[in-house]
Amino acid sequence: MSEIPTAPPSGFRDFLPEACLARARVIDAISRVYRSYGFSQISTSAVEDLAVLTGKGGGENEKLIFKILKRGDKLASAQGSSELADLGLRFDLTLPLARYYSRHRGVLPSPFKAFAIGPVWRAERAQKGRYREFYQCDADILGSESSCCEIEVISAVLSVFKDLALPAPAVLLNDRRLLFALCDRWRVPPDKRGDFCIALDKLDKTGPDAVLRELGGLLGGAASEELRTFVQSGTADPALLSAAAPGHMANLLAIRDGLAKLFPDYGSFAVSPALARGLDYYTGTIYELRLATSAGSLGGGGRYDGLTEKFGGPRTPACGISIGFERLMLLMEGNVKVPGPDACMTVFSEDLRPACLRLAAQLRGRGLSVDVYPGAAKLKTQFKYADSRKARFALVLGPEEAAQEKIKAKELATGQEYLLKLDELVERLA
Amino acid sequence: MSEIPTAPPSGFRDFLPEACLARARVIDAISRVYRSYGFSQISTSAVEDLAVLTGKGGGENEKLIFKILKRGDKLASAQGSSELADLGLRFDLTLPLARYYSRHRGVLPSPFKAFAIGPVWRAERAQKGRYREFYQCDADILGSESSCCEIEVISAVLSVFKDLALPAPAVLLNDRRLLFALCDRWRVPPDKRGDFCIALDKLDKTGPDAVLRELGGLLGGAASEELRTFVQSGTADPALLSAAAPGHMANLLAIRDGLAKLFPDYGSFAVSPALARGLDYYTGTIYELRLATSAGSLGGGGRYDGLTEKFGGPRTPACGISIGFERLMLLMEGNVKVPGPDACMTVFSEDLRPACLRLAAQLRGRGLSVDVYPGAAKLKTQFKYADSRKARFALVLGPEEAAQEKIKAKELATGQEYLLKLDELVERLA
Repeated sequence: MSEIPTAPPSGFRDFLPEACLARARVIDAISRVYRSYGFSQISTSAVEDLAVLTGKGGGENEKLIFKILKRGDKLASAQGSSELADLGLRFDLTLPLARYYSRHRGVLPSPFKAFAIGPVWRAERAQKGRYREFYQCDADILGSESSCCEIEVISAVLSVFKDLALPAPAVLLNDRRLLFALCDRWRVPPDKRGDFCIALDKLDKTGPDAVLRELGGLLGGAASEELRTFVQSGTADPALLSAAAPGHMANLLAIRDGLAKLFPDYGSFAVSPALARGLDYYTGTIYELRLATSAGSLGGGGRYDGLTEKFGGPRTPACGISIGFERLMLLMEGNVKVPGPDACMTVFSEDLRPACLRLAAQLRGRGLSVDVYPGAAKLKTQFKYADSRKARFALVLGPEEAAQEKIKAKELATGQEYLLKLDELVERLA
Repeated sequence: MSEIPTAPPSGFRDFLPEACLARARVIDAISRVYRSYGFSQISTSAVEDLAVLTGKGGGENEKLIFKILKRGDKLASAQGSSELADLGLRFDLTLPLARYYSRHRGVLPSPFKAFAIGPVWRAERAQKGRYREFYQCDADILGSESSCCEIEVISAVLSVFKDLALPAPAVLLNDRRLLFALCDRWRVPPDKRGDFCIALDKLDKTGPDAVLRELGGLLGGAASEELRTFVQSGTADPALLSAAAPGHMANLLAIRDGLAKLFPDYGSFAVSPALARGLDYYTGTIYELRLATSAGSLGGGGRYDGLTEKFGGPRTPACGISIGFERLMLLMEGNVKVPGPDACMTVFSEDLRPACLRLAAQLRGRGLSVDVYPGAAKLKTQFKYADSRKARFALVLGPEEAAQEKIKAKELATGQEYLLKLDELVERLA
């Protein structure tokens, strides 16, 4: 018997009631803010055809797909081959959105502002703070090329952080087309641009020396002095950038200034020429939100104008942002109020249970949360239970109270006891 | 390109914004009612070790597990064997709860009242109304033998239905131990009792003749006259039942009467001797909620006192209930209000966009949901967009309005236009 695991599989998690409630509250806050910006929630299945998940510019994530074994006859005839799986768990919310939009665009508003919140799965090596099942909270706008889309999705996430009373983040902005112009300047072969970005994206993790070694490999020789300075400082001469891609630089500055006007007292906004992001499907602007107090990014996204085309539809301009929910929860830890029920109703004796259940039903009907002790136990045990539930009050309806048509309410934080009629009790609990 | 599917895999679903919002509202209602009863939300991973999912009395569902292919070296060494998978998607929320409780019981309240809402997956043949990914909404009480647990979990689901303004359901009650006593009477071999219950559970779907044929197979001969009557009528002589298992019959009647007292005007409550339920893990009471207007059950559950033992822990009395969420949503269809945003902000011209974004931010700060048209288009197109979003108002901030420090608000349902100051606008939108 002891061989059956009671822990979830490595990299997966159970959430205890308090953690679960904290997560639910933060998800509620994110949904509320996204809705206030006019985004509509959509939902797709956890499972996608493998053909949807592969070959779409998911970068390293494509190697991390949890694949689902074929079933029945299909499995039998696949035995021994390498095509044992036909389905997979989604590794992000962007590919499913692109598929969804390609299928349903005819009945969706245009432009389409969508948000999605849900788990994604990646078969990464499990390590502290990195999970195989984690939540993403994405907001996207499809069908508009305007830079107001970038302003809108970044604003939405800033409003979420503000709503959650998080410290103001730094917003880093860049554009893949600027990076590509620099690639041309530094003679990175066009077919190696994606690899260039992925290598650059590791700057935070592996440091400039390792990145330069990797870039040397891509270039087939040592990096130029200019490229070395770029990688080591993470910045580039603004004149150089403007010269490389003047229109895109102006666009970035317009986004930066638009955001700075909307958030004069919250956040900083800067073009960050070495910001690369790790996904191949980005075609234009890219952005990331970081906190001084926390390693890595709290969220980010970019423009992926070509993705819907890969599902057979026309080219659709699109840009989106994703909140790194698990990292956000680490920051929120302990800051989310997780109250217990308003009251725990004790059961004095079995013959009084019906009266206790009726009272609880009345209180619930008035919008209160009331736990009734499920079982028979000494009052002392029942009070301990009320404590363990973090209830605000424990209620007693014994023969004395019943005779007076009153209820005894004990405030557990203070020990104060009250003898109250139903209406008085509702008032005290509310 | 056209070979890449834009539909989700067979049996899986996309949800359009309105359906998604309706589902979210019903899930909110269920959570709110479960919380009002003092249940704490828990959450477990979608993925479990296969060893957790198999051999635990999941009945037919164990055959329907989506299995996840091993990865890397483990896959390489499993090639050609039948052990290609190590993980699986959960097919219900009860086995994960039993695992969870076995692992965390030391830090959980006792008794433990838990609820869980989330998707489960079964590789069933996809057909109308039957999906491979669907939601369950479970409430369970672990650690108490008292029949008040049954009353509490059934009451919670009745309160959910009432909250959603559904017609009153019929609550059918039975006890596996009554069925087992009848099995003894009808000489069903003890090791065939599970099969007996599973056969009986098909009564609704396949009818009495098919069930009697299956039972004949189990019995190794024709069914007795008494068993034939039982299967054909779905009832049994009350005297017979009371004689077979008097304690359990009295317990069922107490649950029935307790519920009837709490819900004098909502629902009917009856012992239903042929109710069997399809899961092996039930050990005591079982129950189901049905609507006259809808085939099949809207929810049900039972007592499964032995399940935690299978995870190596002590025997823990436990009972729970599950709402059939997808069937519930079919009934709710069209009854859930799915409003659009309070307003769509048009953008008169690019130079006025910053002022429009600022105004939207102010309105959102006052608790309103405001969509800003993302892009540049004629006002006519922007008004069409506002219509397609089902916004209540479209807002215009053109040069004339800006000069007067006012905003034009058009109520889309009536066509009525207002020229308002910010505070007046907030009041009109609220």
